Amino acid sequence: MRACDIIKKKRDGYELTRDELLYIVTGYTAGEIPDYQISALLMAIFYRGMTEEETVALTKVMLSSGVVLDFSDIESPKVDKHSTGGVGDKTSIILGPLISAAGITVPMVSGRGLAHTGGTLDKLESIPGFRTALSLEQFEENLKKVGISLIGQTEQIVPADRKFYALRDVTATVDSVPLIASSIMSKKLAEGIDGLVLDVKVGSGAFMKNTHDARVLAKTLVHIGNALGVKTVAILTDMEQPLGKTIGNSLEIKECISALHGRWPKDLKELTLSLGAWMIEVATTVCDFTFSVNGKEYIGFEAYNAGLLELIHDGSALTKFADLIAAQGANPALSGRPDLLPSSKMTKQIIIHGNGYIQSIDAEMAGIASMLLGAGRRKMEDHIDHTAGIVLNKKVGDSVIAGEPIATFHYSNDRDVKEAVDTFLSGIEIGPEKVEPRNIVLEVMQ
Amino acid sequence: MRACDIIKKKRDGYELTRDELLYIVTGYTAGEIPDYQISALLMAIFYRGMTEEETVALTKVMLSSGVVLDFSDIESPKVDKHSTGGVGDKTSIILGPLISAAGITVPMVSGRGLAHTGGTLDKLESIPGFRTALSLEQFEENLKKVGISLIGQTEQIVPADRKFYALRDVTATVDSVPLIASSIMSKKLAEGIDGLVLDVKVGSGAFMKNTHDARVLAKTLVHIGNALGVKTVAILTDMEQPLGKTIGNSLEIKECISALHGRWPKDLKELTLSLGAWMIEVATTVCDFTFSVNGKEYIGFEAYNAGLLELIHDGSALTKFADLIAAQGANPALSGRPDLLPSSKMTKQIIIHGNGYIQSIDAEMAGIASMLLGAGRRKMEDHIDHTAGIVLNKKVGDSVIAGEPIATFHYSNDRDVKEAVDTFLSGIEIGPEKVEPRNIVLEVMQ
Repeated sequence: MRACDIIKKKRDGYELTRDELLYIVTGYTAGEIPDYQISALLMAIFYRGMTEEETVALTKVMLSSGVVLDFSDIESPKVDKHSTGGVGDKTSIILGPLISAAGITVPMVSGRGLAHTGGTLDKLESIPGFRTALSLEQFEENLKKVGISLIGQTEQIVPADRKFYALRDVTATVDSVPLIASSIMSKKLAEGIDGLVLDVKVGSGAFMKNTHDARVLAKTLVHIGNALGVKTVAILTDMEQPLGKTIGNSLEIKECISALHGRWPKDLKELTLSLGAWMIEVATTVCDFTFSVNGKEYIGFEAYNAGLLELIHDGSALTKFADLIAAQGANPALSGRPDLLPSSKMTKQIIIHGNGYIQSIDAEMAGIASMLLGAGRRKMEDHIDHTAGIVLNKKVGDSVIAGEPIATFHYSNDRDVKEAVDTFLSGIEIGPEKVEPRNIVLEVMQ
Repeated sequence: MRACDIIKKKRDGYELTRDELLYIVTGYTAGEIPDYQISALLMAIFYRGMTEEETVALTKVMLSSGVVLDFSDIESPKVDKHSTGGVGDKTSIILGPLISAAGITVPMVSGRGLAHTGGTLDKLESIPGFRTALSLEQFEENLKKVGISLIGQTEQIVPADRKFYALRDVTATVDSVPLIASSIMSKKLAEGIDGLVLDVKVGSGAFMKNTHDARVLAKTLVHIGNALGVKTVAILTDMEQPLGKTIGNSLEIKECISALHGRWPKDLKELTLSLGAWMIEVATTVCDFTFSVNGKEYIGFEAYNAGLLELIHDGSALTKFADLIAAQGANPALSGRPDLLPSSKMTKQIIIHGNGYIQSIDAEMAGIASMLLGAGRRKMEDHIDHTAGIVLNKKVGDSVIAGEPIATFHYSNDRDVKEAVDTFLSGIEIGPEKVEPRNIVLEVMQ
């Protein structure tokens, strides 16, 4: 087998075999096939795509480049949730404790933010003392003890993906559905899970800007998961405006703690409960699992929301959050005292001129503004300011009066604040027409 | 400027600017842009193509990566001829002396054979003592003294092309018209010529398998040459069967010497005279040049053939050949004694079963058979046997009787002879129908 022949085959639109994909992935990971052949192949895949079978085979081969965790000695169902990335998306940090309080084990391997999007690891690391770089042994121990653990990708999990991703990033081959899907799914399937719920974001703040593209990606992700034995459901959700009322790492942790106390914005609540209900549904489908809270059984999809809300109201989700952060090195008292989290040095209120209804808050612009305040990275190597970000006072559909502050910017370095304000405001549209609040859950694919 | 943004721009189908191409070519040649970004860009160019303007700009930028020769102190017109590569194509070795005997300076920078095709440099090196690796100073000196010199590409001529070509070869990005065209033309335009005649081969033994593809390439080559100030003409010629009666390096040199004595197969004669006439036509167009032999002027395209034949008959072309090989280190007496050239250790007659007319002699199969006998390289690094090859007794249209030898194989190592015979015979078709000899010159584009 020669890499050049495999490139030519894909270049000319043919399907690659499992053996050819294995040759490419293992050869590249071992450093035997050079970057320049892989990047030519990736560009050919960008244009030619891959069949469903090919994408499944690629995922399996990627997966086999590293350790696949095995938690079969944990009796409860193992279910994870993954988001394709957005602005203000802190659902994992609420859902993890909530679903683990429901009796499901949640092994979460998460990522960092890039460009205008946030990342779960960055958010968690804004909690003083919280460690995301656990060994796989510690990860397993925490899962058994707490029922949830949240870590970053390690050297052992899908090492092929790290090499491929770094190369795609500098060769304009990121935007390819089979490559995105196999990258996401190989990492998720390495977690030793029984089921997976995917939050596929659509809109200006998402990777997929329109419903058609999001559907294609969701369909591919669901097919790969189910083909490889993990019950997978994908939910298409709105990312035209930021999710919830905060953007930025410690600001979002505060909003999560508030949510776990039962105080949360409508869209964040609706999305979290919907994803949570699907995680429970998946658990009941793949395992002998019944969802019960304080001795009461919640049977059927319609009932799950009530059970999840009960776990919020009775404090079990919050307790689980305290246990989670304690097990990973932080002070569990934070769960009752979010004011102990670090704050930025400066704040600035963003005033809008004009009366009317908020027609749109462009999520990408808000994400870039937050990044400019210090909450995100322009380049992979950049450091982030965990306290920087944006608090929104208004969401789409809310009325606004001239002179009213619609948001507060938090930052400790004012170098790019002007640019951040201009960027943020360029994404705000006010109009005289009343508009309905946006629907958050758009479609379910399974 | 960032390489990644330029890749993305081409990936999405946009035209690159001269500055972007300059950034890519100079950055890559200097080792500042890595192979893996260039190979992704080459694959994007493979799919997206390039506009005429872009291709011209790329050629100019490639050209500027090295030395552009300047022979403006040589008064006579400087005209070269280049072939896109075929099987049995030895016209350069006849045309060079012939055209230089006509009073035109011929600065030829030639290439080696690859896969089933032959290369002028390999053929010349089958002449004992002949050196193709002259310095540019020696090249210029020989041009002034003899009127012709034939060398290989040096480190100084279009260094960018060497890097690009090596990368294209291993990333399945060779077959792209703008890349082929800019590679050929940058090297030719570095020769300091006034005019150029291109022999674009079409057919099984050529790079372009059909007339449409050959036309597209020819049109691009002609456009680049004329846009960059060198009068360029392209002739589409037949490469369905091997050219002339020999394939293989020293065998072809013997056929060239025979041709310079006035004994040559019809197709070789017709093609050589046609290309030669176009070289003279180009010289008269761009310079104040009149074609005269022994005091007689030959005016108008129709007259050139007669003048060229006169240069064969009076021995001037042969004398020029002797001068050429003497100037580059070989024994000029070879021009009268081709039997002094080395021969293979073994020969084998290839017998055909069946009577009729030869319908086809597949040039690619014949080229591969010759390569298997040792005349060509399977890989760039392989050594070749200068004495190996094939002598054809018959051409398409000739009649054949069962038991009659249609070819003789020459070789010194019989390891792959069986495979060579099978390959050669798989390309021979005999049928009862009388067929016309093939036309060699198909179209002229200028």
